Amino acid sequence: MAWKYMTAGESHGPAVTGYLEGMPAGLALGPADVDPDLARRQVGYGRGARMAIEKDTVEFIGGIRFGRTTGAPIALMVRNRGREEFTSPPKDYQPLVMPRPGHTDLAGALKYGFKDLRNVLERASARETAARVAIGACARKLLHKFGIEVRSVVEEIGGVRADIPEKMTATWWRRAEGSPLRCPDQKAEEAMKKAINRAARDGDTLGGRIRVEAFGVPPGLGSNSQWDSKLDGRLAGALMALPAVKGVESGIGFAVCRRPGSAVHDPIYYSAKRPYGYYRRSNRAGGIEGGITNGESVRMHLAMKPIPTLRRPLRTVDIVSRKAGKASVVRSDICAVPALGVIAEAVVALEIAGAMREKFGGDSLQEMTANFKSYLKRIRK
Amino acid sequence: MAWKYMTAGESHGPAVTGYLEGMPAGLALGPADVDPDLARRQVGYGRGARMAIEKDTVEFIGGIRFGRTTGAPIALMVRNRGREEFTSPPKDYQPLVMPRPGHTDLAGALKYGFKDLRNVLERASARETAARVAIGACARKLLHKFGIEVRSVVEEIGGVRADIPEKMTATWWRRAEGSPLRCPDQKAEEAMKKAINRAARDGDTLGGRIRVEAFGVPPGLGSNSQWDSKLDGRLAGALMALPAVKGVESGIGFAVCRRPGSAVHDPIYYSAKRPYGYYRRSNRAGGIEGGITNGESVRMHLAMKPIPTLRRPLRTVDIVSRKAGKASVVRSDICAVPALGVIAEAVVALEIAGAMREKFGGDSLQEMTANFKSYLKRIRK
Amino acid sequence: MAWKYMTAGESHGPAVTGYLEGMPAGLALGPADVDPDLARRQVGYGRGARMAIEKDTVEFIGGIRFGRTTGAPIALMVRNRGREEFTSPPKDYQPLVMPRPGHTDLAGALKYGFKDLRNVLERASARETAARVAIGACARKLLHKFGIEVRSVVEEIGGVRADIPEKMTATWWRRAEGSPLRCPDQKAEEAMKKAINRAARDGDTLGGRIRVEAFGVPPGLGSNSQWDSKLDGRLAGALMALPAVKGVESGIGFAVCRRPGSAVHDPIYYSAKRPYGYYRRSNRAGGIEGGITNGESVRMHLAMKPIPTLRRPLRTVDIVSRKAGKASVVRSDICAVPALGVIAEAVVALEIAGAMREKFGGDSLQEMTANFKSYLKRIRK
Amino acid sequence: MAWKYMTAGESHGPAVTGYLEGMPAGLALGPADVDPDLARRQVGYGRGARMAIEKDTVEFIGGIRFGRTTGAPIALMVRNRGREEFTSPPKDYQPLVMPRPGHTDLAGALKYGFKDLRNVLERASARETAARVAIGACARKLLHKFGIEVRSVVEEIGGVRADIPEKMTATWWRRAEGSPLRCPDQKAEEAMKKAINRAARDGDTLGGRIRVEAFGVPPGLGSNSQWDSKLDGRLAGALMALPAVKGVESGIGFAVCRRPGSAVHDPIYYSAKRPYGYYRRSNRAGGIEGGITNGESVRMHLAMKPIPTLRRPLRTVDIVSRKAGKASVVRSDICAVPALGVIAEAVVALEIAGAMREKFGGDSLQEMTANFKSYLKRIRK
Repeated sequence: MAWKYMTAGESHGPAVTGYLEGMPAGLALGPADVDPDLARRQVGYGRGARMAIEKDTVEFIGGIRFGRTTGAPIALMVRNRGREEFTSPPKDYQPLVMPRPGHTDLAGALKYGFKDLRNVLERASARETAARVAIGACARKLLHKFGIEVRSVVEEIGGVRADIPEKMTATWWRRAEGSPLRCPDQKAEEAMKKAINRAARDGDTLGGRIRVEAFGVPPGLGSNSQWDSKLDGRLAGALMALPAVKGVESGIGFAVCRRPGSAVHDPIYYSAKRPYGYYRRSNRAGGIEGGITNGESVRMHLAMKPIPTLRRPLRTVDIVSRKAGKASVVRSDICAVPALGVIAEAVVALEIAGAMREKFGGDSLQEMTANFKSYLKRIRK
Repeated sequence: MAWKYMTAGESHGPAVTGYLEGMPAGLALGPADVDPDLARRQVGYGRGARMAIEKDTVEFIGGIRFGRTTGAPIALMVRNRGREEFTSPPKDYQPLVMPRPGHTDLAGALKYGFKDLRNVLERASARETAARVAIGACARKLLHKFGIEVRSVVEEIGGVRADIPEKMTATWWRRAEGSPLRCPDQKAEEAMKKAINRAARDGDTLGGRIRVEAFGVPPGLGSNSQWDSKLDGRLAGALMALPAVKGVESGIGFAVCRRPGSAVHDPIYYSAKRPYGYYRRSNRAGGIEGGITNGESVRMHLAMKPIPTLRRPLRTVDIVSRKAGKASVVRSDICAVPALGVIAEAVVALEIAGAMREKFGGDSLQEMTANFKSYLKRIRK
Repeated sequence: MAWKYMTAGESHGPAVTGYLEGMPAGLALGPADVDPDLARRQVGYGRGARMAIEKDTVEFIGGIRFGRTTGAPIALMVRNRGREEFTSPPKDYQPLVMPRPGHTDLAGALKYGFKDLRNVLERASARETAARVAIGACARKLLHKFGIEVRSVVEEIGGVRADIPEKMTATWWRRAEGSPLRCPDQKAEEAMKKAINRAARDGDTLGGRIRVEAFGVPPGLGSNSQWDSKLDGRLAGALMALPAVKGVESGIGFAVCRRPGSAVHDPIYYSAKRPYGYYRRSNRAGGIEGGITNGESVRMHLAMKPIPTLRRPLRTVDIVSRKAGKASVVRSDICAVPALGVIAEAVVALEIAGAMREKFGGDSLQEMTANFKSYLKRIRK
Repeated sequence: MAWKYMTAGESHGPAVTGYLEGMPAGLALGPADVDPDLARRQVGYGRGARMAIEKDTVEFIGGIRFGRTTGAPIALMVRNRGREEFTSPPKDYQPLVMPRPGHTDLAGALKYGFKDLRNVLERASARETAARVAIGACARKLLHKFGIEVRSVVEEIGGVRADIPEKMTATWWRRAEGSPLRCPDQKAEEAMKKAINRAARDGDTLGGRIRVEAFGVPPGLGSNSQWDSKLDGRLAGALMALPAVKGVESGIGFAVCRRPGSAVHDPIYYSAKRPYGYYRRSNRAGGIEGGITNGESVRMHLAMKPIPTLRRPLRTVDIVSRKAGKASVVRSDICAVPALGVIAEAVVALEIAGAMREKFGGDSLQEMTANFKSYLKRIRK
């Protein structure tokens, strides 16, 4: 089994699609496991009109029979409701020529030699993440069978920082899930909403900071044997590849620059009552040491830049006439930070599930589970 | 051509080795291109005794004939001078059983089922990065032919932040290169040295922050077409996979959480005098938009945690007796942040060279150069 | 760009789908380029009832806008017309428990731990090749722009060998294309039909031998630098991975065992009038020497085993009761050799297009074409 | 774990090297496991002078500590004894300009733009296979722990076919191993020697046919889920990528063209006394159905073309002057078919070991073994 996933499809084409290889056979899986995450991706204070149109639902094309995976690759599709003419240009079609600073528009036009920026932005659109969320929900269902849960929380929007403990209790997580900004600190949430309203008024946009955390991850996933097998590298690569992400941290991240080693590393303890015996009282490492999970929760943080489409557009250059002008204004959100949290959960689930498949092998859920349990028993000895 | 690289070898085995596939034929390449980077990796205030022993030099095993690459994979080797007995344990051999918090020791022992931590740390040792630097130097030589240079600078150590402009002039870079801490702000450098001395006295260690930047990168490298083809994701993955790195930023990174879109995105300008026509006056994006280079310098920042081996060791647990104790003390440095800068240059060079190979193809330097020039001419039209 | 392709979907699910990454932007592409190959895959004397039901047509989901590729991954879908209930078992559902010798049934059931063979054969069905043919048709369209054509011919069925010259003229190829068995030797074709009729009467099935050949391939594709970059290895891997293929030859193949070197290798000639200067008067090598194309046509031969579903079924064992019995009889063909030719063309087109992308790089058809022409000019100098 | 292997190094450089990733920790491994295969690769009636010079021995550079694997990548090296000046051309150096038909010489020179064919043939030389044999011996040692053995036998040389049963007993295999031509049919062997002597006299060379077979392979390796995961495809790809191989067969191979399905497929039987319960009385499939092993031995056949270096050289063209002439004569063998058998064993061992790693996962031999045993127990239930 090689665990891999990819997506295809454009913002205004018929659908976005996802492909996932390496799923074991025998996992109960269906739209009911995926649609809730598609819905969670669509909510959030500060989202534009499109979110209301879409109401995404998944259709499975391959990999499932009678409600269970078969070991065949999973193929799924999320149809685009707000679809436009795609096969040939409508009569009054005008190419888009004013690239938005901060978006792929210009870099893509130079790369591919396009004179119509829509050829770039159709695929570069964040619409694609609906497919990543859908495949991620499949990975999440697999992880669930092994007691692993992936969650996210918004820590900061537009300079407003929430006050959230390093170790969030169930109450905190519940509150995050119930919040329109996915932020459990209600006071901060109110301030964030105000900041979003202000940005909306100013024709501006806002970014923010997210925590994504995986609980119940066993020690020994990932590897230090080769640079591209380290789990923190793989997670960072997948997270930085999300639209608009500009920073990624593992554990306390950039704070390590300011503390001595004695205040960074997590002392090791042992108790026969703990699932893996060894445990930590702090988790500044974010659950990964040397590219391998250590049995603590895997915690990453990421920074999302403000959306590049501003109602009060930035200076740019017409790619045909080469004259200065204002960037295109495409229908967009003010702030998509909460949605990014859901998307980040999906890719973290995909990477951790991949690392689980590597370590435990097996072609069916039954076989993989047996191998998993036998490993846990061995490390307890 | 598929561009890929990997390393092998342990800290006290005969050598660390590097393998690089995808180099075009006809590039003049030899030890003189690699040894200076190996030397740069070894310097730095706050390094331990081993650095003095080593004086690394490269030996090419494959891929070069009469001083030029042939298109065959490059294989190279950096011998370990401070080599110990590796084939069978010496008579008085004692396995290492006290895992260091912050290191791979415990996670690796659980993963592989080892009762001697040295089986993990021999490969997990930062010694491996000598091989990455050596292969990176080959990539750097290739980039040089296309006018691309990769540099690094230390921005912060142990909480002391240097005052460095976003746009560093040649003088700044020269000063960085001349400094024992690779930091061009001399006042900050003095304070950093003091912090290192203090940490040494306390039996503690220090981390820090690095900027790595690639100049002369053409627009259009990387891709937005699939998540794993985005250049920022690939760079972040490679950088987070460096030993001790806990945070990675593209451009202004986490600062995007605190600024509105209008103060984050870089407005677009055009001048026929600029190499690619289009340019920016700011580079907050760090040269990448939507996973594709935009013609500005590619700038990443990273955070390195303090080295996990503390002379005043942290609490840990004996992996055999399961009793509490103090972590092992292995010969080590107080601060390796400057060296990490050199290593980060290597992996950034490898990723950018890979993206150049993808875009420009070709099997010889001559062919690749012709394709490169023809592209530049086309985007100027 | 990384060139890769994969398929998903089952025989009785909603559709089979294909995914292709690495296509340059700007290629005119649509159903009209794909449907003819889907139709060619369905014809052939000796095919069963399903072929009549299907009348396959492609739907593009991603990668195309206004009739041209955009550089984004191509996703496409071929719906299953003869679709059965797939979401939950119908009331009278009986699992399949009698594995067919020669099919994946038993090996797959053991691998995945299934008690219903349909869980294996839904994906193992040759229906999947409709997706491979569809993606292959996209690759073929790309190759067409560079003057490369891939064709196939049936050389043998059920022991009846056609008399076909090593170098087939246009007339021969036209005749092959017009024949219901894709065989240009009419006398042999008659005998093959008789053999098929006889097998049908006997409740048996027939295999055969195919030639697939790519014309106009420039020298220098593939590589000898690493084992997995050799073009003959990649072609053999892709062809042996086709359903029922048991043998693959490059050029004269197994005949090399019986001739001395002087009668195997193709002497080299030069004429300024030839497209690449160098040429051969024979092509026993099949256009590949040392894993690299040499400018002659790339010619492979393959052997297809008879279809494993026999109307007069073979001895097998019930996977639940472990009692002996007769293999399941699933609706099937007597002989699918002509269809395999079309499928083989598809995968050969995909591999050669991948090698073209590697060598010539570029993100648009325009860029790739410029690089291609500049290479051809260089090798003529 | 990702199982991958590659080689580097040239014929007259310092060494050929091999790299292997994915080996579990805890396997006893050393030169004594590798050198016998290096020696077997060097023997054989009809080999030239170089074989006598070399006496290859392996040196491990990485991945082994105190005689056991550590889970780190294995790096090894086989030094070149007959080494020539490689760093700069000797004073009287003459570039090679007369490409040998059948060799990579011309195709490589066009690809890379070389005017000295030695730049191609240094890497294209069969010397590289010493590295493949060395890594293959590591894979073989791993397989040995699971009761899997890979063997080869010469079936035909220069038109002389040995009379060998489909099912070879231990005596037959012992006889093959003892024979200078690795052929157990002594009468045929005598005739082969005569053919080799005749070819030597004529300044010609001979090819032949090999059987390579893996015993003890459990059912369920490989996969039918994606084209590139089928084990027969992977084996065919690896075998066709061996130097001089022009044909590959799985099981009875091309004979399937001439027999009806009822005489091709292997009826299924069951006996509680058999290791996997299910078994076959014939093995025409060669142990693989639908890309998955079925519990019978995995049997492949390959065709090797005669060596392209003829003492009585073929017609060719000078790549500088473009004038007709005779091909270069480089020191070479008359017949290397027996050696190819040993090399084929190595790559078959590498592919099967990779499939074992995929299915059974695990990071240590202990973990992998536990997973393996638990699977076997499950399929017996």
